[in-house]
Amino acid sequence: MHSVDYFRTEFISYLEKKIITKEPVNLYEPISYILELGGKRLRPVLTLMTAEIFGVDYKKALDAALAIEVFHNFSLVHDDIMDDAPLRRGKASVHEKWDINTGILSGDAMLINAYQLFENYENDTFRALAQLFTKTAIEVCEGQQYDMDFETRDNVTISEYLKMIDYKTAVLVGAAMKMGGIIAQASTEDQNRIYDFGRNLGIAFQLQDDYLDAFGNPETFGKQVGGDIIENKKTYLYLKALELGTKEQIRELTDLYSIHPNDTKHKIDTVKEVFVETGVVENAKEKISEYTQKAFEVLEELQITKENKEVLREFGESLMQREV
Amino acid sequence: MHSVDYFRTEFISYLEKKIITKEPVNLYEPISYILELGGKRLRPVLTLMTAEIFGVDYKKALDAALAIEVFHNFSLVHDDIMDDAPLRRGKASVHEKWDINTGILSGDAMLINAYQLFENYENDTFRALAQLFTKTAIEVCEGQQYDMDFETRDNVTISEYLKMIDYKTAVLVGAAMKMGGIIAQASTEDQNRIYDFGRNLGIAFQLQDDYLDAFGNPETFGKQVGGDIIENKKTYLYLKALELGTKEQIRELTDLYSIHPNDTKHKIDTVKEVFVETGVVENAKEKISEYTQKAFEVLEELQITKENKEVLREFGESLMQREV
Repeated sequence: MHSVDYFRTEFISYLEKKIITKEPVNLYEPISYILELGGKRLRPVLTLMTAEIFGVDYKKALDAALAIEVFHNFSLVHDDIMDDAPLRRGKASVHEKWDINTGILSGDAMLINAYQLFENYENDTFRALAQLFTKTAIEVCEGQQYDMDFETRDNVTISEYLKMIDYKTAVLVGAAMKMGGIIAQASTEDQNRIYDFGRNLGIAFQLQDDYLDAFGNPETFGKQVGGDIIENKKTYLYLKALELGTKEQIRELTDLYSIHPNDTKHKIDTVKEVFVETGVVENAKEKISEYTQKAFEVLEELQITKENKEVLREFGESLMQREV
Repeated sequence: MHSVDYFRTEFISYLEKKIITKEPVNLYEPISYILELGGKRLRPVLTLMTAEIFGVDYKKALDAALAIEVFHNFSLVHDDIMDDAPLRRGKASVHEKWDINTGILSGDAMLINAYQLFENYENDTFRALAQLFTKTAIEVCEGQQYDMDFETRDNVTISEYLKMIDYKTAVLVGAAMKMGGIIAQASTEDQNRIYDFGRNLGIAFQLQDDYLDAFGNPETFGKQVGGDIIENKKTYLYLKALELGTKEQIRELTDLYSIHPNDTKHKIDTVKEVFVETGVVENAKEKISEYTQKAFEVLEELQITKENKEVLREFGESLMQREV
């Protein structure tokens, strides 16, 4: 079994071989730019790893892995326009470096390019990959819509929030892994199990992101700690605090989430205090653990070697132990 | 053989049956809106007609026809954002009625929905449709990019312009017809011929659009006559005038295309005079006729009945005789 680092290196060298800036350059240059910006390459690595776990040469999964990464980056380019985000991975976002029109059209081309990569597979595999991709891509769009809708809604429930992060983030992690299973012609049951594994891990990962955004180590957390609080973002912590808090705590929280004070430190500290006092921090940790456990339970049923189950479990644990 | 009107009516009733505004409504409502705005439904009608011509029940082609129409409308939604166009078919464009974010995301979902419609076909057909669609969709994006690039370029050649309208407009007409051929399992040769027929007709159609924009009958032409001239759009007429004109005429034209005067009537009249004097009007008519003839020549080689060739020829002629 190859290591995560090995898969990442192999993926990146494949990506670099495939990135060609052709005519019209104004369409393809931004695509090369965003794909070369870096990132953890988590999703494509999962596709390669899963293919190998189900007994096929990971090289066969490179095009599907690339499709997943191209799609993920398409969604970043369009989301950054919608969120008016000037930065992506510490560099200028595409619409900031070029303009909004460039971001829209290059993003569109990336979405189509992702489908094109499946053409390198035989008929049944092609169809299975394309259909899974379509279903997932629609869900990602719906997740993004829910996320935008929530900004202006005051009555978002925890279950709505969980559905949103499931669609916006988790289904793509599940799909990335299922694609490895499809290419390796794993049984339908195993394909569904690995999908559920990835999906539950994806939800746990996103919940942990919410947690780390407030309580992460500023030395190691990639983004600004407290960023969600500054932006009044309705994360799991916030929504759960509204559920568990006293009348007093809820008023304090909603008041703080209706302003953009210059003194962000005081706001962040006060909100975090409320998160701790309401028991939201403990609750979030439990929830993260719950979804991680769900993922590990699915693992048991998979018809793969004990060693490979261990590989997946270790990967999941390493993901959940991150503080960055 | 059913009539164009019959196909259009059948298509619209299928479209209306398929349009469902589900959750999240902010994603799907704009999709229903743009698809119900109307339009000639030219492309889907061509898919249905071609399927019947190649001997299969047109009903089998309804999903592919819908995919083509959904894609066409996706491109209108995103293009309207890029062109800052407040109106579409006389009504508010999607980003104007909602906002840019809604236009981007609903457009993305439409592009994915188009692929989803091919899932109603068996494996070989599914693959052939999806691959043709992908190739075409990429070309349409490239065409849109060239179109935007040309706005700020002073040295656009006629051949570059023809490639742009081929990609932005004509290939989708060709693909709409080829899809009918794919569904009817026509021979590869016939599939390619009907594609070339549609593509040449598409170029002729767009060149005629350029011509009518300046010289169409204001009573019957759907858009404002002279609109391209007001916007300094580098159409075939303009680019050809730069090629055929005297130094004097070229200077007059480029001067007029560098301003946005309040008195548009004088500008339009002067530009049209130059178009006539340089011989561009005659040249454009010849070019339109040349592409129409190319389409009709391809027709001869098609392995279909004489009656069906006549249907296609009449359709092409009716398209080219329009003054609207």
